[in-house]
Amino acid sequence: MKKYIYLDNAATTALDAEVLSAMLPYLTEHYGNPSSSYALGREAKAAIEANRKSVALALGVSPLNIYFTSGGTESNNTAIACAVNELGCKHIITSSIEHHAVLNTVKRYCERSAIDCTILTPSTQGFLNLQELEDKLIEKNKEGIKCLVSLMHANNEIGVLLDIEKVGNLCEKYNAIFHSDCVQTIGHLEMDLKKYKLHFASASGHKFHGPKGTGILYASERVKLSPLIIGGGQERQSRAGTENVAGIVGFGKALELSMRNHPEESTYIRSLNELMRNALSQSIPDVSFNSPIDGLYTVLSVNFLNAMPGSLLLAHLDRAGICASGGSACSSGSDGGSHVINALGLSSSGSTVRFSFSKLTSATDVDEAVRALSAIFQSTVPVA
Amino acid sequence: MKKYIYLDNAATTALDAEVLSAMLPYLTEHYGNPSSSYALGREAKAAIEANRKSVALALGVSPLNIYFTSGGTESNNTAIACAVNELGCKHIITSSIEHHAVLNTVKRYCERSAIDCTILTPSTQGFLNLQELEDKLIEKNKEGIKCLVSLMHANNEIGVLLDIEKVGNLCEKYNAIFHSDCVQTIGHLEMDLKKYKLHFASASGHKFHGPKGTGILYASERVKLSPLIIGGGQERQSRAGTENVAGIVGFGKALELSMRNHPEESTYIRSLNELMRNALSQSIPDVSFNSPIDGLYTVLSVNFLNAMPGSLLLAHLDRAGICASGGSACSSGSDGGSHVINALGLSSSGSTVRFSFSKLTSATDVDEAVRALSAIFQSTVPVA
Repeated sequence: MKKYIYLDNAATTALDAEVLSAMLPYLTEHYGNPSSSYALGREAKAAIEANRKSVALALGVSPLNIYFTSGGTESNNTAIACAVNELGCKHIITSSIEHHAVLNTVKRYCERSAIDCTILTPSTQGFLNLQELEDKLIEKNKEGIKCLVSLMHANNEIGVLLDIEKVGNLCEKYNAIFHSDCVQTIGHLEMDLKKYKLHFASASGHKFHGPKGTGILYASERVKLSPLIIGGGQERQSRAGTENVAGIVGFGKALELSMRNHPEESTYIRSLNELMRNALSQSIPDVSFNSPIDGLYTVLSVNFLNAMPGSLLLAHLDRAGICASGGSACSSGSDGGSHVINALGLSSSGSTVRFSFSKLTSATDVDEAVRALSAIFQSTVPVA
Repeated sequence: MKKYIYLDNAATTALDAEVLSAMLPYLTEHYGNPSSSYALGREAKAAIEANRKSVALALGVSPLNIYFTSGGTESNNTAIACAVNELGCKHIITSSIEHHAVLNTVKRYCERSAIDCTILTPSTQGFLNLQELEDKLIEKNKEGIKCLVSLMHANNEIGVLLDIEKVGNLCEKYNAIFHSDCVQTIGHLEMDLKKYKLHFASASGHKFHGPKGTGILYASERVKLSPLIIGGGQERQSRAGTENVAGIVGFGKALELSMRNHPEESTYIRSLNELMRNALSQSIPDVSFNSPIDGLYTVLSVNFLNAMPGSLLLAHLDRAGICASGGSACSSGSDGGSHVINALGLSSSGSTVRFSFSKLTSATDVDEAVRALSAIFQSTVPVA
């Protein structure tokens, strides 16, 4: 029997065994510094460049557009810093349900420099009003103020998807820089970054069975990326520091596997998501869903009306061996609850749990989780 | 027979097998997100905190002073950004032989904000004139301008050591913030960061048989560290992004092993360094040494007077299977040669090769490298 049932794949995923196998040679014999000019260094460099190519291929762009970083947060920070410091953006348009890696970074720039921002508020379902976005772009464009639009592709807590192509077109029309936090979608959706007219997109390896501490920033050839982390000339002068070779190899392999198996795996995961939605609807009274039906297939955010406080519910789930979260992992421990659920106006109406699935989740996992939830709601035994 | 002889341990080191063993559970079953509140997350968090304790113990400080980063470059950048943006430093004193992670970062701040800097020039042997440092600190102190002093503990190319305790005392006396890039010394020397009166110190795991993509920033309790990478509340609000748990475990284990075995290993490595110095003196005409006798025991920078250009010499060494570098790895590929060797005024007098040693180097490696060098200098066959 499994020790626990892992239904928090939007927080992090288990490293794929095949990814670890690809990484191991670079954690053992191939340990050269990729900046070194001798054979041992050149072979490390070659591994980086092969993975850059494979990542670029998966995303429909050129290897010259791909920069390896230490993760999604660094990628988001780098894109925003570049837009503000180098590309002349004086106004940032973002939304209240962005990840903190974007929202807190934008707030910092607005507090500390001559940058203004507009924070769009989505509907209760998480959808942005794109007319409101266009109106703001028109206004700023008339004022001659260049905008950065930073909007996530899929929300990490409820899975609502942005019409990224439409936003890309709007940004192009009004001469704005477009960054998207694609941490929940790269590795999970077929992506064609060029088509989306993005300037920047961020991804994180550990969200699709790659290693933690790895990410990429995509930067279009229409912008020159400047480093957030300054020093040596690594990553074509755009991200200093000795490259995490094994991590880069792991990122590349994980993305390759994800995209190779995407049609079957996404169908399978979607079926688990639907299974859980249906089973919860049938077994638990007063349940509702924060995730739209046509949202990201990996995430199911559930609202339990008139239930115990969310933290207590999560504690019960933990005792039952079910791994799930209240909001994002990053806000798990915070007292204020999820900023996303708060922003959607859903915080007062019950307790929210996010379940998220991967290729490693089974239908039995889903059944057991639903059974555990039923038992928790029927039981009156409090958590010790 | 070995495929090659690795004498570039200041560029990077092979991962210790015991370090990899410590990491593997966190690359397989213990994959939880350390910010998650359930058991799988808590055990990842516990691993991070256990390693923070062990790192702190090795450095004579409190775990509260240790922040995990993606490497030495990020640590250096974070310290400098914090000093300038948060601690009121308006003048930076550094030296012309710092690593680019410091030098280029300082230059960027000086170009782009109301920050001035003084770049100290060391003697041909690499020693700084501490009277010159004190004079500058007195001058700025009188003007009421707060200084950041950023000076590396051991130079990565020639191994010259800073009298870090003396500099710490000077900084304290004149109310300056003191950062030291300790990337070449943490893991190689017994360190007592508290005694040195440092505010910040940087280290990198892959310099002492830990994994690439890992580092720490030490920040004294006298300063409040603010994040360079903004987002979630990881690392006590000071470094956002999902923690690289396996990397952190690897960093901690590598430092623990280095310090546990330090007395014997440093004696052994020092003997190899002396062996090479003596053997080169005896076998190669017109050889001289850029590394002081009492410098860092891991590094031997050698000058071959009237020899072929450095890049050609390194190519010959590569063909003979000898891994060594001209300067730092980061400047291996750059045409201008090493900025350190240039700053010391040594560039015109011959070609420079840095050899650097580790516990994995053998006396046979040194003998073979010296034999290969003799053969190269005796041969007239040019590199194809």
